[in-house]
Amino acid sequence: MAGRRQGGVTMHDVAAIAGVSIKTVSNVINGYPYIRPETKERVEAAIEQLGYRVNITARNLRQGRTGMIGLAVPELSLPYFAELADSVIRAAEPHGVVVLIEQTNAIRERELEVLTSARRHLTDGLIFSPLALGAEDRERFVVDYPMVLLGERIFHGPADHVTMSNVEAARAATRHLVESGRTRIAVIGAHEGETIGTAALRVQGYRQALEDAGLPFDPALLAEAGAWHRSTGAAAMHRLLDAGTEIDAVFGLNDALALGALRALHARGVAVPEDVAVLGFDDVDDAAYASPPLTSVAPGREQIARTAVELLLARVAGTAEGEPVEVYADFELVVRESTAGVHAPARA
Amino acid sequence: MAGRRQGGVTMHDVAAIAGVSIKTVSNVINGYPYIRPETKERVEAAIEQLGYRVNITARNLRQGRTGMIGLAVPELSLPYFAELADSVIRAAEPHGVVVLIEQTNAIRERELEVLTSARRHLTDGLIFSPLALGAEDRERFVVDYPMVLLGERIFHGPADHVTMSNVEAARAATRHLVESGRTRIAVIGAHEGETIGTAALRVQGYRQALEDAGLPFDPALLAEAGAWHRSTGAAAMHRLLDAGTEIDAVFGLNDALALGALRALHARGVAVPEDVAVLGFDDVDDAAYASPPLTSVAPGREQIARTAVELLLARVAGTAEGEPVEVYADFELVVRESTAGVHAPARA
Repeated sequence: MAGRRQGGVTMHDVAAIAGVSIKTVSNVINGYPYIRPETKERVEAAIEQLGYRVNITARNLRQGRTGMIGLAVPELSLPYFAELADSVIRAAEPHGVVVLIEQTNAIRERELEVLTSARRHLTDGLIFSPLALGAEDRERFVVDYPMVLLGERIFHGPADHVTMSNVEAARAATRHLVESGRTRIAVIGAHEGETIGTAALRVQGYRQALEDAGLPFDPALLAEAGAWHRSTGAAAMHRLLDAGTEIDAVFGLNDALALGALRALHARGVAVPEDVAVLGFDDVDDAAYASPPLTSVAPGREQIARTAVELLLARVAGTAEGEPVEVYADFELVVRESTAGVHAPARA
Repeated sequence: MAGRRQGGVTMHDVAAIAGVSIKTVSNVINGYPYIRPETKERVEAAIEQLGYRVNITARNLRQGRTGMIGLAVPELSLPYFAELADSVIRAAEPHGVVVLIEQTNAIRERELEVLTSARRHLTDGLIFSPLALGAEDRERFVVDYPMVLLGERIFHGPADHVTMSNVEAARAATRHLVESGRTRIAVIGAHEGETIGTAALRVQGYRQALEDAGLPFDPALLAEAGAWHRSTGAAAMHRLLDAGTEIDAVFGLNDALALGALRALHARGVAVPEDVAVLGFDDVDDAAYASPPLTSVAPGREQIARTAVELLLARVAGTAEGEPVEVYADFELVVRESTAGVHAPARA
């Protein structure tokens, strides 16, 4: 059934044929005033020539709604995204809106296809958490249907955006470790060379907290992990222990990494939290049931879901207009046994 | 946006108006021979009167396919279903088919809506894991589009069905505990009074293994847990310990329950596996990263996903016809430290 895609023609193709910017195509489609008649004609001719299907649901705001929205996430087997999907579904329910979920596996082509697929004409709008596309793909996020972006791949983009306070939250998490007497804090999940994205923002917060405390930054304490799974967290922890790096705390950049590290520490006979404190990020359901229970950052997942749904439905209904908005969710540090202080009094 | 559902008319309504069975309506729609002309006319009149929309994708098998299938599961925040969704997406990918996922929260009305929604006309078919509907709703599962059922709520129903070998797998799991020297094996997750469904089948396998080993069945060892989450598993474990019931092993009917029980045992200072062995079911990703790593039944999740996708696409393509088939996936017991024997030699 491959290759049976319909409606593969995008606004970008229309712009190329008409020799205008995507924004101009979007303005013509959305009926904005102040467009020169000849420009409008060129765009309309290109639309006709290419057989481009304008999204009916976006155009006719108050009619023809499907009562469905799309949610595209990288990976449902990662608890954070599974729980996010659950929260989005629950947030949409009081509005009588059904959520259709798609998984991209963080593959660039799949993410591009999510944006341009004919499926977008089946739903009223899209909540999209990209992981392969980023700020360099800004133009791709200019679409002719309501969309809300999640995550940290693009800021100040062409769509509403709901995200976490990554830097501040990582700073608070690291401060908590410092205050419980830790000075050699390893980070698991770093992405060397990346300057944007979740890893970079959380490492930035970590470094700010070290600076706040007057502690030196030691690059030997940063452990790489490409994918953020338990297996990669365990492997990174083993590498740190094998290297003989002195460590008294581990900050897993998500809970899966921290839980993997916890497992590796157990396997190597390192006592948690006595010898090494462990801290995660996301506060997924597992965190509270780890042994010992894992201290983690709750990044406001339900607030993110609720805000994303409300922003999207306001755009769908036409009650929100104008420039894209950017919303940062509130975070909370959930302190559990895995970071109980030994050098300083326990805070758990 | 509530109440904007389209196509709410179902085959059941057509059957009621025409005064015939649903099967007859289905036969007329699917163009089966041997239908009396006056019956056919009555059904067609009812279809017209009600404005019933026959699923085009089901009727015109070799044309008009959307390249999308639906997957409806109870809860994505349960790791088993999140991982199942991931497996279905990966199984559909080589066929160029996109999977749109819906969550029902195991609510009866939501499950009925999944079956009759106008959304069914947007996809080529449905893979459905019901949890509220069951054998008593057999007629509801007679639909006019290709569908594959998952789970244990209905057997020998009107659609292809892929399921686990629950009884045999639970029997093998319990046998493993018996062979490692355990005789007082608690079960967490029982549903008292239920005779169908996953809990009933797994308890049946547990009882068979006890009988095989000549061990008595003690109802005091069955702990109820309605929803199968870590929290309910922990609570059930605490209740068993509070009741002072003698226990040397715990069989959590899924991994979430077992992981919750593990947490409760740790909190109460009970050594695992020395004092109490713990065993789960599903072999979710967390199982291997628990402390100690959790022995679990791998129920053939990828085989289930692959088989369901292949059966569904064969029905969509019209290459499979005739009576519904029932497929049982192969299971495997994955032995880890949580059930290492103390009375008998360790098997881990």
